[in-house]
This record gives sequence, structure tokens and C-alpha cells, in this order.
Amino acid sequence: MKCGSGIEARQVNEVSINVDPIQAGGRLTVDAMKAVIAYGDGYSVCDNCRKPNRLDYISKPPIAEFHKDLAQWLNMDSARVVPGARRGFQAVCHTYVKQGDPVLLTSLSHYTEFLAIEDSGGIACEIPVDKKYIVTADETAKKIEEVKKQFGRPPVLLFIDHVDYQFGNVHDVEGITKVAHQYDIPVLYNGAYTVGILPVDGKKIGADFVVGSGHKSMAAPAPSGVVAATSERANEVFRTTAITGDVTGRKFGIKETELMGCTLMGVTLVGMMASFPHVEERVKHFDRELENNRIVLEALLSIEGTKVLSEYPRKHTLTRIDTTNSFDKVAQNHKKRGFFFSSALTEKGIAGIIPGATRVWKFNTYGITTKQANYLAQVFIDIARENNLKIS
Amino acid sequence: MKCGSGIEARQVNEVSINVDPIQAGGRLTVDAMKAVIAYGDGYSVCDNCRKPNRLDYISKPPIAEFHKDLAQWLNMDSARVVPGARRGFQAVCHTYVKQGDPVLLTSLSHYTEFLAIEDSGGIACEIPVDKKYIVTADETAKKIEEVKKQFGRPPVLLFIDHVDYQFGNVHDVEGITKVAHQYDIPVLYNGAYTVGILPVDGKKIGADFVVGSGHKSMAAPAPSGVVAATSERANEVFRTTAITGDVTGRKFGIKETELMGCTLMGVTLVGMMASFPHVEERVKHFDRELENNRIVLEALLSIEGTKVLSEYPRKHTLTRIDTTNSFDKVAQNHKKRGFFFSSALTEKGIAGIIPGATRVWKFNTYGITTKQANYLAQVFIDIARENNLKIS
Repeated sequence: MKCGSGIEARQVNEVSINVDPIQAGGRLTVDAMKAVIAYGDGYSVCDNCRKPNRLDYISKPPIAEFHKDLAQWLNMDSARVVPGARRGFQAVCHTYVKQGDPVLLTSLSHYTEFLAIEDSGGIACEIPVDKKYIVTADETAKKIEEVKKQFGRPPVLLFIDHVDYQFGNVHDVEGITKVAHQYDIPVLYNGAYTVGILPVDGKKIGADFVVGSGHKSMAAPAPSGVVAATSERANEVFRTTAITGDVTGRKFGIKETELMGCTLMGVTLVGMMASFPHVEERVKHFDRELENNRIVLEALLSIEGTKVLSEYPRKHTLTRIDTTNSFDKVAQNHKKRGFFFSSALTEKGIAGIIPGATRVWKFNTYGITTKQANYLAQVFIDIARENNLKIS
Repeated sequence: MKCGSGIEARQVNEVSINVDPIQAGGRLTVDAMKAVIAYGDGYSVCDNCRKPNRLDYISKPPIAEFHKDLAQWLNMDSARVVPGARRGFQAVCHTYVKQGDPVLLTSLSHYTEFLAIEDSGGIACEIPVDKKYIVTADETAKKIEEVKKQFGRPPVLLFIDHVDYQFGNVHDVEGITKVAHQYDIPVLYNGAYTVGILPVDGKKIGADFVVGSGHKSMAAPAPSGVVAATSERANEVFRTTAITGDVTGRKFGIKETELMGCTLMGVTLVGMMASFPHVEERVKHFDRELENNRIVLEALLSIEGTKVLSEYPRKHTLTRIDTTNSFDKVAQNHKKRGFFFSSALTEKGIAGIIPGATRVWKFNTYGITTKQANYLAQVFIDIARENNLKIS
């Protein structure tokens, strides 16, 4: 089925159980799908844009209200929507980081944080992880001292991913923030895997900024995201334009420079908004998600030779697994090589695991039902049995 | 009809003739609407992302091919998609503009160009328009000389909007580019009102960059856009990341720093792609659009006291009109004041003209049929007659 010249209609989430590590939290809700249909056209949210002509002032659809709700939900003072979490990183970096400035992030930080630092001319300084691949307050304090020694000054900004993309481990954001603030370092809490998934309380964490991803974790179309800030930091990052035209004397009202004015003028924003009540509700039930993850993970771990590389028991549904001594052994002698595994998964209606991967790979059970979790668990065991792996 | 809690389903383009100045070129095609439905989910285009893991390398859906087609269509060497034209301005500014650098733009430039300059620390220098509100090569040359005198060096970048947002006038982009290149100033051609509307030939214009807007003029959802570059400039603006992790030694492959890695991971991009064949076709028939604009504009000008502020005859469908001596005279004594006009328009099924505006206002007939143009022409005349204005 085509949805345009050469474009096959996508139906992966309709015909399979999709455990793709990055896609799980970004599947649209039914309301978001309706909103996408109603607001597909380009500048669709701008019908009732009136003075002062800024996206977050529009009241129909209720964009202004949504901005207030977002900030309150994250327990921060102000919020803005952005085309992806990365554009939030960029805005914050560009406000605080000058050429040659050291910026702290972690050994598990996402590449987009590095790009935001690079784009502002900063130097990326990684906080090492401990033996369990956890970032701690102690290591943060040590690294700040090292940076001070090396650069003659503390880092100008700290990024901390509450849950990292590599292991899905939960890091000590509160402890780390406390340390950073002892050195007056502003903290950007990266909630790409938490905002929209778990309850997030920015003030409790002590974050200066809370950044979330719409398409990763808020059941919204791409690119979308949120940057929330304390009132002090909002004045800095959401500062309004001061430039004027030298010939015309034009000024540009209350447009915000780091955001390039309005950000999400259509389908992306309305998709986020339509999903929002459902997202507010779902974060309260993360325990169910962890239970589904446990069902699947225990099945995997019952296959002899299989190890979980993420912290265990799991505190997040994104999980890194090592099947070098189980499925990869099969791959060595299988005529399909590593593809035997993905091929068997596809046949059984499972999507989202990288084709050919049989050593270290990731999956994310977020959003599947318990019935689907049980089925998926059985699928892994069946594939193991069919290939003569021992089940304990 | 609701499409989510508190969100009224939008149907302005289904139930009315919408002549909103910024919305005309961004209405989705039927194929784009299908694509939006099929690719609504967050990271929907990433199902088949394989090494080297970059958006413009994905072949299913045919994103890689689309990037090549886009570049070729604009007669440029490389193209990238971005979350709106403004993010293209930002990437280019951030590459060439350092603190205190003079940057040329025009007295009719869009505010997002100013913000991009401000965000990079540049100084905005406007080229004055002539008496007919046209930007010329002569005025450009004069302004460059002035800037050289004032700053001791020529501007580091020049923005030129082929068609401006204020009057919809067509400016001498080829002549201006020629002058800029005599001073080795790179030229960013802002095609927000042309790319997807008119044929655009980047090499013929001599542009270093061609920037277009998906949601303004390419029948795509927001935020979306394109930056195309010559091969020389592509190496500069689309440079790949060079940052490394100091602890892990991580590098980040061929991700592009100014773009923050991947840009449009879902519905926005597939919407652009699905509309693209239709957009390629429609730019060949701009004469029909001008003819529809003529029908409407002549009707307006037949109302005594009405003036067109845009260049005339029109070369673009975006048009600025002055009804201070016609509809505004009615407003002075009407019980609804200025709202009599928008109210009458709404009653007759016309949308997109700012409520309350009866002096200077804009409309854009792009995309309406000849039948609709005739109807709209009659509507203006009818409203005039009903309010005792003379028709010539």
C-alpha cells in the first residue's frame, strides 16, 4: 500500500509488537492521530494568532494553556516547545557556553548533547561511570575538580541524562544536581527517556532546565520536544530579541532569539497537545511497564548464556542485553548467520530489534500489554528451543 | 468536533476559501495527508536506519533519493531538510557570522533572518528599498560600501528574500548576488515564498544557499524546510562533528553539527516527500495562479478608493492592499467597526484575512481555483456594494 509516489505506507505498529529502543514512547495516541489528521496543513495552528504574535500566546487551539500545563506538570516555572530535545540543548548551550568553555556531561550522554556543545564552541568533559554503569554524585564532584584544575574554572553547564540511551540505567540526578549547584553550575536535566514515561519533578531534582522529547517519549510526531526552566533561567534562555533594523528601525516584539521565534506551528505541536492528557495519566502507571519488562527479561535470562548489561532489577523498560553466549553461538553455524534471529522474530511478528544483531542489543517494552509481554517472552524461548539452546 | 481534550478539529480549508498570506502554499496534498496518517508516530522514518545512521542515508522510505532529488530540483549540489527555513538561516549564520560581524539583509527581510543574525552575534545591516519597494543591485552595492566604511570590512553574509513577506514583490536576486560575489560575500537565497511555488534555479541565481520552507510553500507539515548548498558551501555548513568524549574516546560518526544530527524524523519529512512530485509539477503552472490573483485584485481595485501597495501588475500571489479609502470609510460608521469586513467575509465563506483589518492588509490567492477566484472577486464587490461603496 502506497501513501505517495514510492512511499510504502508504514504499518509496523499495526501488524507487529514493536520493541524498538527509541520508538516505544513516541507512538501516537488515538487523539494525537485525530489531531494529526485535523492539523496536518503547514501553519495549521496559526488561524487565530493575534498580537503579540507568538506561538505560546495562541488560545485557540489552547496552546497558551498547554504551555502553562507543561510547566506545571514538570514542576518548573516556564516551558517552551522545540523541534526535538536537541534543539533545547542547543538553545541552552548557546546561552551559557562560549568558545573554549568546559561543559560537563557523562560517559553515557547522547550524541546530540555533544553536538550542542560543539556547536557553541565548548569542550565536552565526560563524568566517568562506576562499575555498574551508573553516574554518581561522587564522580561528578571529582570531575568538576579535575576540570577546575585543567581549565582554571568550573564547567559552565552540566548535562545529566536521568535515564541513559545505552543501558536505560537510572542515574542519581538529585545528588549530581546538588554537587553542581555547589559550584553554581546550571544543570540541564535530559529527560528524553523520562518526560512522558515517568513522573518528573524538576524542582525536586533541582534542575535549572528539564528537557523532554515529544517524538521519543510523549506520544507526539517528530520533531517535537519541550524545554522547561526555572524563572531565573527562563529569563536567560527565553530572552526576547533586541536586534533592530538599521534602516527601517524595525524591532521584533517578544520573539525569543534562541528559539528562532515560533517553533512548532502545526501538526507536531497539536499532536503533543492531544496526547498530553494521556501522557499525564500514563506516567502514573510505570510500575505496570516495569512488570511487563520483567516478564520479557526473565524469559531472556532463562536462556543459558544470556546476560543483562543494564542494571538489574530494571528501573526502566529500555534494556541492554548480551546474547553472545546464546543466540550468537547459534549464529556461528546458522546458514542465515546473525540474521537467523531477526528473521525468526519477524516471522513471529516482533519488530524493532536490529537485523543481524545477536551479540549486544537493546529493546524497549514500553507501551506493550501484558498479553504481548507474555507472547514476546514465549517468542524468545521458542527461538532458543528451536535452535537447541538450554532453558533453565 | 473535537480531536482531543479541548482541541477543536480544524476545518478552515475544508469549509472556506482560505487566502491567509502565510498558509496558502502549505496546505497538504492528498498524498501528504495519507503520508501523515501512515507516518504520524514519533520516529516513524527510522525503522530501516542502518549505518552510518543518518537521516539522509535512509533508503526506505526513500529519504536518500529525496535528498538528491531536492538538490537537483533546486539546481544545487547538496540539500538537507531542517525544521523550518529559520533553522536553515541559523545553521548558515552560525557557520559564517562571528560576534560583531556585519551581515546584510534587506528592509523587507523576515524577522527570522534577524533572529538568526542576533543569535550568532552579528549586526544586521538593511539594504534600503527603492521607491517601488524593490531591492536592487545598485542599492546593494551602495550598502556594501557603507558597511565597509563603517566596519572596516565587507559583510560576511547576505540574505536576500526573492519574494518578500510584506509586499510579495520580486527582487533582483541575480543582480544582487552578482554584486555580493564581487566582494566574496556568500549569498543565502531565501525562497520561503518561492521554493515550491515558482521554479527556482540556484545556479542561475548564483546563490551559495537556497533555503525553502516546507510548511509555507511545499505543501508539508510544520516545522519543515530545506537548505540546499553549492558543494563548496556544503562542506562548510554541513561539516561533520569533530568532538570526542574525553573519557570514553567516543566519536560521533558523520552527524552534522549545525543540523544537530538528524532533523525531521517522521511525519514532517514524509509529508514533504509525498507532496514533492505534486510540488515539482505545480511550480510549472504559476501563470495560472497569477491569473487567479489578477481576477481577485482587479475586482478589489474596481472598488473606489482601493489601492494595491505591492508592485503591479503582480508577479506573485501574495498581495498587500490598502482599503483605507474604501472599506475603512465604511468601518468608521459601521456598528461593528472594522469587524464588519471580516464578519461579512466569514459569512460568505472567506477565511484568512485578519479580523478587524480594514486599512492595510494582505491576502494570498495561491492554490485557489479559477471558480473560487471569481467567487472571491464577487464577494469583495458585493461587500462594497452592500456598504454603498462605488464600483468603477
